[in-house]
Amino acid sequence: MRYDFVSDNTAGLAPEALDALIRANDGGFVRSYGADPVSARCADLIREKLEADAEIRFVFNGTAANALALSMIARPFEAVLTHGHAHICTDEAGAPGLFGHGVGLIKLGGRSGRIEPGEAAAALAEPWAGYIQPPAALSVTQATEYGAVYTEEELRKLIEPCKLAGLKAHVDGARLANAVAAGFDPKDIPRLGVDVLVLGAAKAGAAGVEALVVFDKSLSRHIDNRLKQAGQVGSKARFMAAPLLGLLESGAWEGHAAHANRMAQRLAEAVRTRTPWPLAHPVQANLVFVSMPPEARDRLAALGWAAYEFSDGSTRFVCSWATTEAMVDEFAEALAKAA
Amino acid sequence: MRYDFVSDNTAGLAPEALDALIRANDGGFVRSYGADPVSARCADLIREKLEADAEIRFVFNGTAANALALSMIARPFEAVLTHGHAHICTDEAGAPGLFGHGVGLIKLGGRSGRIEPGEAAAALAEPWAGYIQPPAALSVTQATEYGAVYTEEELRKLIEPCKLAGLKAHVDGARLANAVAAGFDPKDIPRLGVDVLVLGAAKAGAAGVEALVVFDKSLSRHIDNRLKQAGQVGSKARFMAAPLLGLLESGAWEGHAAHANRMAQRLAEAVRTRTPWPLAHPVQANLVFVSMPPEARDRLAALGWAAYEFSDGSTRFVCSWATTEAMVDEFAEALAKAA
Amino acid sequence: MRYDFVSDNTAGLAPEALDALIRANDGGFVRSYGADPVSARCADLIREKLEADAEIRFVFNGTAANALALSMIARPFEAVLTHGHAHICTDEAGAPGLFGHGVGLIKLGGRSGRIEPGEAAAALAEPWAGYIQPPAALSVTQATEYGAVYTEEELRKLIEPCKLAGLKAHVDGARLANAVAAGFDPKDIPRLGVDVLVLGAAKAGAAGVEALVVFDKSLSRHIDNRLKQAGQVGSKARFMAAPLLGLLESGAWEGHAAHANRMAQRLAEAVRTRTPWPLAHPVQANLVFVSMPPEARDRLAALGWAAYEFSDGSTRFVCSWATTEAMVDEFAEALAKAA
Amino acid sequence: MRYDFVSDNTAGLAPEALDALIRANDGGFVRSYGADPVSARCADLIREKLEADAEIRFVFNGTAANALALSMIARPFEAVLTHGHAHICTDEAGAPGLFGHGVGLIKLGGRSGRIEPGEAAAALAEPWAGYIQPPAALSVTQATEYGAVYTEEELRKLIEPCKLAGLKAHVDGARLANAVAAGFDPKDIPRLGVDVLVLGAAKAGAAGVEALVVFDKSLSRHIDNRLKQAGQVGSKARFMAAPLLGLLESGAWEGHAAHANRMAQRLAEAVRTRTPWPLAHPVQANLVFVSMPPEARDRLAALGWAAYEFSDGSTRFVCSWATTEAMVDEFAEALAKAA
Repeated sequence: MRYDFVSDNTAGLAPEALDALIRANDGGFVRSYGADPVSARCADLIREKLEADAEIRFVFNGTAANALALSMIARPFEAVLTHGHAHICTDEAGAPGLFGHGVGLIKLGGRSGRIEPGEAAAALAEPWAGYIQPPAALSVTQATEYGAVYTEEELRKLIEPCKLAGLKAHVDGARLANAVAAGFDPKDIPRLGVDVLVLGAAKAGAAGVEALVVFDKSLSRHIDNRLKQAGQVGSKARFMAAPLLGLLESGAWEGHAAHANRMAQRLAEAVRTRTPWPLAHPVQANLVFVSMPPEARDRLAALGWAAYEFSDGSTRFVCSWATTEAMVDEFAEALAKAA
Repeated sequence: MRYDFVSDNTAGLAPEALDALIRANDGGFVRSYGADPVSARCADLIREKLEADAEIRFVFNGTAANALALSMIARPFEAVLTHGHAHICTDEAGAPGLFGHGVGLIKLGGRSGRIEPGEAAAALAEPWAGYIQPPAALSVTQATEYGAVYTEEELRKLIEPCKLAGLKAHVDGARLANAVAAGFDPKDIPRLGVDVLVLGAAKAGAAGVEALVVFDKSLSRHIDNRLKQAGQVGSKARFMAAPLLGLLESGAWEGHAAHANRMAQRLAEAVRTRTPWPLAHPVQANLVFVSMPPEARDRLAALGWAAYEFSDGSTRFVCSWATTEAMVDEFAEALAKAA
Repeated sequence: MRYDFVSDNTAGLAPEALDALIRANDGGFVRSYGADPVSARCADLIREKLEADAEIRFVFNGTAANALALSMIARPFEAVLTHGHAHICTDEAGAPGLFGHGVGLIKLGGRSGRIEPGEAAAALAEPWAGYIQPPAALSVTQATEYGAVYTEEELRKLIEPCKLAGLKAHVDGARLANAVAAGFDPKDIPRLGVDVLVLGAAKAGAAGVEALVVFDKSLSRHIDNRLKQAGQVGSKARFMAAPLLGLLESGAWEGHAAHANRMAQRLAEAVRTRTPWPLAHPVQANLVFVSMPPEARDRLAALGWAAYEFSDGSTRFVCSWATTEAMVDEFAEALAKAA
Repeated sequence: MRYDFVSDNTAGLAPEALDALIRANDGGFVRSYGADPVSARCADLIREKLEADAEIRFVFNGTAANALALSMIARPFEAVLTHGHAHICTDEAGAPGLFGHGVGLIKLGGRSGRIEPGEAAAALAEPWAGYIQPPAALSVTQATEYGAVYTEEELRKLIEPCKLAGLKAHVDGARLANAVAAGFDPKDIPRLGVDVLVLGAAKAGAAGVEALVVFDKSLSRHIDNRLKQAGQVGSKARFMAAPLLGLLESGAWEGHAAHANRMAQRLAEAVRTRTPWPLAHPVQANLVFVSMPPEARDRLAALGWAAYEFSDGSTRFVCSWATTEAMVDEFAEALAKAA
């Protein structure tokens, strides 16, 4: 069975990531637990890219990064406003609740994973009561789990009222590189008053690392102890930061994402022209959602291609840095046959 | 400043580990989140080495591995018997409490990190009361944080009474390879009735991975969900298992540990012959503890060598797979000068 | 403003409860923390009433009782199937998440707070995946938050498939007395395989106490330590058990509930005959839900009667042991005026 | 077996507490969950007594009150400086860890339960490291678990350096009434910069209630939701506040404590004159600690009097509001016989 289009995590390390990791091994004996030059340099590059000061740490995966971020901005007896299909709601086995000790998630709706501003406003307008978990933070995903990319204006309409109401804001940027490649300016994130960003690395070609970027330093008190306690401090930390550093230094972080986005466009075009199935969401990043019947997925499987049903009932296909035009074309054949 | 002897985590990836990681990248698109052939093969090798069936998962570091292990064998309102200088007590920023939601640690004494059986027996004999956290598990470290290696007989004397009293048993094997290289048979671990083992990889030459080995499968219900929620499931999981697989397949897991142990002997010999300072603990694994005054550490630092004071007031020096005879000899010079 | 029909918690202690509390104070010096004869006798009466053996403890309120019960039957990385409008979902500020360290709640639908068996079956049929919180328990409320009473047959249809699938079962019996007064046999609870029951006392005329009834004793390991750690062990525990003992010994537990149910019928009749508003739910216990416009609530308030909108948009009126026919009639006048 | 001198929790409700509880029941229907006039009046009296503004809530017991207080002033990855024999360390089954999600306790020494200032200073001077739980708060008990009463000067020497170092401060006042009766001015608590006080009620003659007094209102964000989630909001809350209100309004809070202290003096005098056993601690509040051999406790038991060994190996006797001179004299006989 082939897993080429099932996830951006079925691909390996991008060459720039692997090279940087190999180079990091040539450094001899260096300080452990993050006090190494690779980690420092990587953090500097992120601050540059975001044109903002921030406390930056590297953690092992997005689940931990998001859950730790939320634990910084909402207490156990409070809640986070988020999209009902956000990764933190559907794919992290309740990690926000574990790291946040029971913190609540208030699930909002909206097309293609983008929170509908009216729903956020309604949640903010709910009267306080002692028996609820009142909202203390907003969490948005950029690009969304459905491959949509918020514009700066759309984000502002969500974030501004929340900040005015005293909430904190988190961005899950597991696919931030794809959003940036699609035209989003990452410097808007601090400019819009986001307090904590998870800057994605694994889906961009790295492995075993995401960056936790804390703009509001009042939230980062004893952050190293927090991460240590949470099992998210690497002993040989240089090998965590190195792959991301390799991607950032080389420009491959956006470059590979732009490639993945283009492959998604190519695949979307194939779906449009060679199958009867509608696209379930606009294709703005590296994800293609197709409204196809379950039997079609079975036929794809029979042809050797794994495919999964997503939360909204459609079928998700993912392109990554490793997806080639030839693979897309080969897969398009299979889709056409399964149609 | 040189960090060669400060920790086994200042060294990089051993060649066998890095090679395996690079090879894992050649596998093209593979299933993510642990359902890959590298993870499967690595788990098989561990079961072989331990001659026991077990549920095996790979997590990012020892702090998480230990804390998750303890969360399986003691509930929040219970406690774990352990050495007061165990890593879980002194070096993990309270991770057992976070993952175990307040689980208690009952700190016992004993020479060189080995729990004194009499103290464990006394703890077991304490009468139950509603206001305490009664002991539900025992945790031992092999080799200990002071580089001592329990014999099978010593472990039996600790574990047997605990198991008879209904407790579960955990082994922190961050330096299990060094214990094995020192003559300990890892197959004794399941034979003695240990329920969960953390089999160390990072200190043996890998990075970003330790193996969680659950012998008592009644404890592993929904283990994947448990690890996912805890932020300990890697998306591109093959890169977690690969370095450990490289070490195990090549024999380097014990081989490097044996080398590190020999370097520690060489260093201990230098301390004995070229300094006035006594060894604070027997040197059985890769750790050398020296009773030296703080000013001597300052002089070492002035000579360019970092050195830290340990929990017991002595100074710890660590040898790793990457330590060479030449380094030891060079360092011995510095020690002689600082003396 | 009058609060007579706003909640069953606006009433005071029933005479039988207060008398027993006063009597408990005549016992001189007795052992604390639950080892007193009042607590023992009360637990015996509950076992008798349920015709079942069980570990029984008294805790301070229903929120803690439910949350502790759930923490016994589902781990943090698992979830509980329950009605989306259950008290544990909407009124406990996330207590299950705090006591259960992030345990999930899978919210099902169904008329009048009764879980629709088809929805439970669908939830059970969901395929397992590592990134979800798989269901480990079922929680039902008897009588429901909407005053409906499950028949034995209806409960069986919910509980049996869950138990067969390996789940545990919890009953929130905050208004169990009202269900019993409406004809439900409490002995069905253990007979149906329920593992933990919260037997309500406060709404039945007591205050500061609910009974935690653990039928499956494998769940009650170190239960006293669990409750102590959770801040739910009373020092002068006899005063917790006494009010409930007074209600049970005198028969007032059901007697008052039967009275409250009758008052609800009387009120429902007044709504039917003197207002244009439909009843939103069948009136089987002590709750009357009326579909009235917000302005009508304002007019009621202007007449001096507090009234609140409930989760489903209707207005809830509650009768208690302390509600008299005269009060119902007086309130009926106000309703007629507000109509 | 008689339990008269075993604890201050073996006594019942003082008459003033019971009377107030009975009176609270005459209030008809009142708002639930704390929005009642009894709770409001009781909070006002506490603010008066402390001559300070504060957010005040009533919780069910001291374990919960302390654990919630600590959860407000130290995060899970931080620690609380406290006496190693403090109630939060030895008698609450790990409640701080549950409510504080793994928060650490740094156990200090000092005579008779009073923290030795030098030990606190040393703890503050410990260098920060990523792998520890750094101190974020100080917790002191007034009167201590050994019946000692800090002077204002002694408290200042502890609290001031901690506050200067950025820590928060908590006072466990389970026996604050006894300290006040011994001459301590409760207004010193806010004056010294304490952030959260637990003002004891149960040991002073109430039951099922302690007051949580939050001076630093930046800590009380969403406090009602916090308490609700923690299972510490009473539905019929007037019955929680009433007994404490009765004690405060009547002056019995200090009055009974002064009586209990006098009874302790009488008992201490009997120990001095009629037994060979030394007093283990100065008798300043209502506790008498006697260094007696275990066999003496057995002889006491044979004479019908329960007695327990305390953490420090001595035997603790407790006088309460309900202890009479006759009881002390009767017990003195028994002590003399057992000697």
